[in-house]
Amino acid sequence: MWKAGIIGATGYTGLVLISLLLNHPKIKITLITSNTYKGKKISDVFLSLKGLCEDTLVATDQEHRGKCDVYFLCLPHGSSMEMAKVLFDRKAIIIDLSADFRFEDTHSYERFYTRHSAKKLIPHAVYGLPEVYREKIKGAKLIANPGCYPTSALLALYPLLKERLLQGEVFIDSKSGVSGAGRELKLGSMFCEVSEGFRAYNVGTHRHEPEIKKEVEKLAKLNVTFVPHLLPMNRGILTTVYATLKQNMKTADILSLYKKTYKDEPFIRIMDEGIYPDTRFSRFSNYCDIGLKSYNDGTVVIIATIDNLIKGASGQAIQNMNIVLGIDERMGLTNIPQFP
Amino acid sequence: MWKAGIIGATGYTGLVLISLLLNHPKIKITLITSNTYKGKKISDVFLSLKGLCEDTLVATDQEHRGKCDVYFLCLPHGSSMEMAKVLFDRKAIIIDLSADFRFEDTHSYERFYTRHSAKKLIPHAVYGLPEVYREKIKGAKLIANPGCYPTSALLALYPLLKERLLQGEVFIDSKSGVSGAGRELKLGSMFCEVSEGFRAYNVGTHRHEPEIKKEVEKLAKLNVTFVPHLLPMNRGILTTVYATLKQNMKTADILSLYKKTYKDEPFIRIMDEGIYPDTRFSRFSNYCDIGLKSYNDGTVVIIATIDNLIKGASGQAIQNMNIVLGIDERMGLTNIPQFP
Amino acid sequence: MWKAGIIGATGYTGLVLISLLLNHPKIKITLITSNTYKGKKISDVFLSLKGLCEDTLVATDQEHRGKCDVYFLCLPHGSSMEMAKVLFDRKAIIIDLSADFRFEDTHSYERFYTRHSAKKLIPHAVYGLPEVYREKIKGAKLIANPGCYPTSALLALYPLLKERLLQGEVFIDSKSGVSGAGRELKLGSMFCEVSEGFRAYNVGTHRHEPEIKKEVEKLAKLNVTFVPHLLPMNRGILTTVYATLKQNMKTADILSLYKKTYKDEPFIRIMDEGIYPDTRFSRFSNYCDIGLKSYNDGTVVIIATIDNLIKGASGQAIQNMNIVLGIDERMGLTNIPQFP
Amino acid sequence: MWKAGIIGATGYTGLVLISLLLNHPKIKITLITSNTYKGKKISDVFLSLKGLCEDTLVATDQEHRGKCDVYFLCLPHGSSMEMAKVLFDRKAIIIDLSADFRFEDTHSYERFYTRHSAKKLIPHAVYGLPEVYREKIKGAKLIANPGCYPTSALLALYPLLKERLLQGEVFIDSKSGVSGAGRELKLGSMFCEVSEGFRAYNVGTHRHEPEIKKEVEKLAKLNVTFVPHLLPMNRGILTTVYATLKQNMKTADILSLYKKTYKDEPFIRIMDEGIYPDTRFSRFSNYCDIGLKSYNDGTVVIIATIDNLIKGASGQAIQNMNIVLGIDERMGLTNIPQFP
Repeated sequence: MWKAGIIGATGYTGLVLISLLLNHPKIKITLITSNTYKGKKISDVFLSLKGLCEDTLVATDQEHRGKCDVYFLCLPHGSSMEMAKVLFDRKAIIIDLSADFRFEDTHSYERFYTRHSAKKLIPHAVYGLPEVYREKIKGAKLIANPGCYPTSALLALYPLLKERLLQGEVFIDSKSGVSGAGRELKLGSMFCEVSEGFRAYNVGTHRHEPEIKKEVEKLAKLNVTFVPHLLPMNRGILTTVYATLKQNMKTADILSLYKKTYKDEPFIRIMDEGIYPDTRFSRFSNYCDIGLKSYNDGTVVIIATIDNLIKGASGQAIQNMNIVLGIDERMGLTNIPQFP
Repeated sequence: MWKAGIIGATGYTGLVLISLLLNHPKIKITLITSNTYKGKKISDVFLSLKGLCEDTLVATDQEHRGKCDVYFLCLPHGSSMEMAKVLFDRKAIIIDLSADFRFEDTHSYERFYTRHSAKKLIPHAVYGLPEVYREKIKGAKLIANPGCYPTSALLALYPLLKERLLQGEVFIDSKSGVSGAGRELKLGSMFCEVSEGFRAYNVGTHRHEPEIKKEVEKLAKLNVTFVPHLLPMNRGILTTVYATLKQNMKTADILSLYKKTYKDEPFIRIMDEGIYPDTRFSRFSNYCDIGLKSYNDGTVVIIATIDNLIKGASGQAIQNMNIVLGIDERMGLTNIPQFP
Repeated sequence: MWKAGIIGATGYTGLVLISLLLNHPKIKITLITSNTYKGKKISDVFLSLKGLCEDTLVATDQEHRGKCDVYFLCLPHGSSMEMAKVLFDRKAIIIDLSADFRFEDTHSYERFYTRHSAKKLIPHAVYGLPEVYREKIKGAKLIANPGCYPTSALLALYPLLKERLLQGEVFIDSKSGVSGAGRELKLGSMFCEVSEGFRAYNVGTHRHEPEIKKEVEKLAKLNVTFVPHLLPMNRGILTTVYATLKQNMKTADILSLYKKTYKDEPFIRIMDEGIYPDTRFSRFSNYCDIGLKSYNDGTVVIIATIDNLIKGASGQAIQNMNIVLGIDERMGLTNIPQFP
Repeated sequence: MWKAGIIGATGYTGLVLISLLLNHPKIKITLITSNTYKGKKISDVFLSLKGLCEDTLVATDQEHRGKCDVYFLCLPHGSSMEMAKVLFDRKAIIIDLSADFRFEDTHSYERFYTRHSAKKLIPHAVYGLPEVYREKIKGAKLIANPGCYPTSALLALYPLLKERLLQGEVFIDSKSGVSGAGRELKLGSMFCEVSEGFRAYNVGTHRHEPEIKKEVEKLAKLNVTFVPHLLPMNRGILTTVYATLKQNMKTADILSLYKKTYKDEPFIRIMDEGIYPDTRFSRFSNYCDIGLKSYNDGTVVIIATIDNLIKGASGQAIQNMNIVLGIDERMGLTNIPQFP
C-alpha cells in the first residue's frame, strides 16, 4: 500500500479524493490537512464519511515532507506552489490540483494569476492530461492536474487538433455545475443566486481560457474563444465546441477518427452518430463522453461531458497517480455513473 | 373591454396567458377551451388560479367563431391551422403560438413540420416579432407568434444584422428551461431525467433552426448553426451567439448601436459593458436582456436572455395583441422580474 | 401617494418589497438604504430592477426620520430596534420585518435573541398577523411583522385554536425554501450544500418556536413541538401540522369552520376536501393556502403553504401597511401565483 | 460467481441494481429483461452503462425459470406475483421489490392493492428488513423487499418499539425525492410540476401506511399517522417521526439505546447528540442515518434518512441477497455517499 496525503482536504476536490481513495486497493490515506478545521475529524466536517474515514485533520502548514508516497495539493493557487516547494524531493509524487504548474511559460502564468514563487520547479512539472501526455506523466514527480474546463475542451478537440484538420475560429461554449466554483463562501454560489437561473460569467477573462489556448496552440494555429456558463446543478460540465474543418468530413468519419485516437483510453467514451452526451451519464465517474456532428458547410460541433470533480479534478488526479505508480489506470476509478 | 379567448388553455402557454390577462386593464377572458379537461374549472386544473379565475373549460372543437375580439391559439402545430381556418374572419385578431404561420414559404414549413392545410391564410399572417415587424403587426389579423429560441436569437442579432455588420459563420448556442418542452408527458421532461443533468438535443434537427435561418437570411447571407440545450430549471432561455464582424468594432460601439436600435423598445434592456444577463433577471417578465463583448479578432459574443413562456411565448403574444389594438404595448406586461 | 422608505434594501425581503411596491398604486418609494452598497444604484445590485428602479442607495445609518410615511425595516434583529428608536414619531408607520418587536414579553425576547434596547417601544408594537389582529393593526404605528414559519403555522391552526377544539400535543413540521435564510453568506446556504439534499435544522432551538408557542398559548394550552427543514428550492414554505381534536369531527366540518373563519380574508384560500396545497400554487403571491384531513382517531392534519418572502415577509408587510392606511388590503398584492 | 437475473430492468430500481451488481465480487448478471425495450442493449436505454454493461434485454414474459441463482423482480405489483409463481422453485432466491409479498395477511394486501393471485407463496415470503428479520431472511427463498418509506420509518422507530417505550400517537412525516415515483410517465413527475415546489400527496391513502402500521403493530399498540411529501430532488428520503415516550428519557439515553440496538448493523449510522442527518450524507449508499432528540414533555423526534433507491430498494435487495447467500452483507454495497 502506498501512503497518500491530501493537503487541503475540506474543499470538494479533497472530499472527492478521499471518497475515491477509500476504495482504492493500493492506497492508504495517511495524512489529511486543513488549517480551517484542524483538530476536527474529517467525518465531522463531512458527515457522509461517518464510519468510513474518522481521521483527524492536521494543520496544512505543518511539516509533512517525506511522510507520504503521494501528495495531492488541493490548495488555492499561490499556496499550492509554496507547499510544492516544501514537499518536492524527487521521490514523492506531487499532484497539484491548482493552476500553479499548468503553464510551462511563467510569464503567462503570472499574467493571469500571480507572481510565481517556485519557478525552479516548473521544469519538473508535467501537464497531467493522460490522453495527451501519458508518456511524460509516467516519469513525473510533479504533475499539474488540468483545469476542469480545459479537460473537457481539450479532450473534445484533441483528435482533430492532432491530425491538423481544423482551421480558423474555435468557439468553446462551456457550462459547469456549481461545485466547479469550490466550497468557498461567495454570493454567486449561494443557492438563491444560482437555482432557477443561468448565466455566462468571466466572459473573456476566465483563467481557463489561456490554459486552453496554450494547449491548442501546441498543435494548431487557431483562434480560440471561450465562454463559461454556470448551470443550476451540482456536478458536471458540458462543453459545446464549434469549429471549422479544413476539408468537409462526414460525421461518421470524424467519429471513426475519435474512436481510433481514443481506442485504448479507459475513460473516453465516443457516442454513436446522432447520440450526444448528457452530464448525468458520466456523473460520479471518471468518464469523458463525446458526441459530435459535422455539417455540410465544414462546421463541426463537438460535445463533451465530464464530472467536473472527477475527470475534471480528483479522478484525473488519481488517474495520473496510477500512471506514475505503474498500476492499472482504472484503480479506484471504477465508480459507475449514477443516475438519477 | 375586449373579449379574449384562449384556445387550448391547459398547457403552460395557456396558463401564462390567463395569468397575465387577468391583470390586463383592457381585456376580459370570455373563453377558455380544452378538449382534455372540458367541463372542469380551470382553477381545478391549475390550483394557482383558485379564486382568481373560476371559468369552466369548454371543448376546443366546438364552434367559437365570432365570439371574441382576440383568440390565442395554444394548440399543437397542425391543429392550430385548422382552428385558424375556423376562426379567421378578418375582424377578430388571431394570435397563433404554434409554428403554423411562421413560414411565409409553405415549402419550408412542410419540409420541417407537416402538410399545410390552410395555405390561403398564409399571406394574411405576420411574423410577430415586434422589434422587427411592428409596423406590419399593427394591421394584422393573423399573427404568427415567434418561437422561443428564435425570439432570443433574433433579438440578439438584429442590430448587427440590420446594419450588415456580420459575415461568415454564426453559431447560436441556446439553453432553455424545461417548460419550453410543454406540458405533454415525455420521458425526457420527467424530473429525474432532467434534474442534475444537462444535455444538447435535436442537434442539427431542431425546427427552430430553419425559423432562425429564414429570418437571418432576410437581412444577411450568413451560415447559421444552432444547437439547443436543456437546462435543469423551469423557465428561461439564454442564447450565446458567436459571430464575426466585417470590421473590428469596440464593445462600447456595438453596445451603442444596440441601445440606438432598441431605444424605443419597452422590453429590451441592454446591459452595460462587462455585464451579462442572467435568466433570473428577466424571469416572469417580458424583458429580453442583452449583453455583448467584442474581441480583437473580430469575434463578437452576444448573450440574450428571455423568459421562454413570456417574451418567448405568451407575453409576446399579448404585446402583439396590444400593438394591433393600438393600446400601450406594456399593458398586462408590467410584471416585474422575480428573483430569487 | 404615500412615501415609503426601505431600510436595508439589499436582502431578499428588501428586493421583494421594492418589486411589489413598484406596482402599488398609492405608494412611491422615496428612500432605499444599504450600508454595504451605499452609493450604488439598486438596479446595479439587482439587475432584475434595471429600467424599473434606478434609485441610489443611501447609507442606512444616516438620519431618515420624518422623511417617509411608511418605513419598512429589513434589518437584522438588534439593528432593527435601534432604527425603530430613531424613526418612531407616532406619525410614520414603522413595519419591522425583524423579530425585535414580536414578543410582548421582553424576557422571552431576551432569552431567545439579545438584550432589548428599545423597551419603551414594545407597548406600541402590534403583532402584524392581519387574520388575527386586524383591528389592532388599524391604529398601529409600529408593526412587528410575523416570522415566516409562524405565519404558516398560526394560519393553519387559528380556526381550531379560536374555537378551542384542540388538546394535547401539536406537532409542527415545517419545510422552507432557502430564501428564508436570507442573502447573508453562509456555508449552509451555498448551492452545493443544499441542492439534491434535505435536512432538519435547529431542532428544538429555532427562534420561531417560541414565537409560535406564545401565540398559540394566547388561545389554548397545548404542547407545541416545531421542527423546521430546509428544502432544495428558492421560495415557499409548507407546514404540516399534526394535532388532536377534543372531539371527533369530519373533514368536511373542519373545512366549513375554516371557510367561515376566513370568509372575508382576501389572502386565505381553503382547499376542497381531498385537495392539499403545493407551494407552487401560492408562489409569488400573498396567498396562504390551507388543506386538511381529519382521521377517525381524532387526529387532524393541516397543511398550509405560503411564499415565505411574500405572505411570510414583504407581502404581509404591505398588507399591514394597507390596513393602517385604510386602503384596499389587496393593493400592490395582486400578483398571481406563477407556475411553473 | 452466482448468476443474477433482473426482471424488469429499465426502471430506476433495475438500473440501480445493475449499477451495484456490476461491482459485486460474487455476482454475474446473466439476465436482464424488459418488455418495453426488449432487443435493445441496456446501455442504449441508459447511456450511463455504455462500456460497462452491453447486455441485450430479453422479454420479461419469456421463460426464465431455473436459469439464475437470484432473481430480482422490479415489476409493478400484480405482475410481480405472477412472475414469482413462474420462477419460484425453492432453489433460486427471489427478491421481490414490489409490494406483492409484503403483507402476511392477504386480506390487507387485497384491501390496499389488488386481488392476490399467488396466495400459496405468501407463507414462503419473508419481509426483508435485515435489521429486524435477519434470522428469518437467512433461510428464505422469497423475500419481500420493504417499501422505501417503511424502511425509513421502521428503522427510525425500531429500537423504541422493541423496548416498548412508546405510547399513544406516532406521526410520521416523510419526504421523498422524485425517483420514488418510478420512471413511469406521470404529469406529477414532470420536471415543471415538481421543481421549485413542494407538496403532500396521498394523505391518508398512501399504501405504505398500512405497511408501516402492520409492522409497528407487531411490536406495540400505537396509532400511526403517515403523511408523505414530494421533494424537488432526485434521490433521498427524510422521515421525521414524532412520538411520545412512556416515561421521560434523555436524548443521550435514547441515543445509547439506538447505538446498542444497531451496534452490529453495517448500514445504520447513529448521529451524535445535536446532529441530524441530511439526505446528502447517505445518497448513493446503503446507509440509514438516524438522529433524534427528546423533549421534556416526553416527546421524541426521530429523523432518519436513506437513499430511497439504495437502502429503500435495490441496495436493501442486495443486502438481503447477501444474507441468504451467507456472504459478507456489505458486498456490492461499498459505495461511499457522494456529495455534492
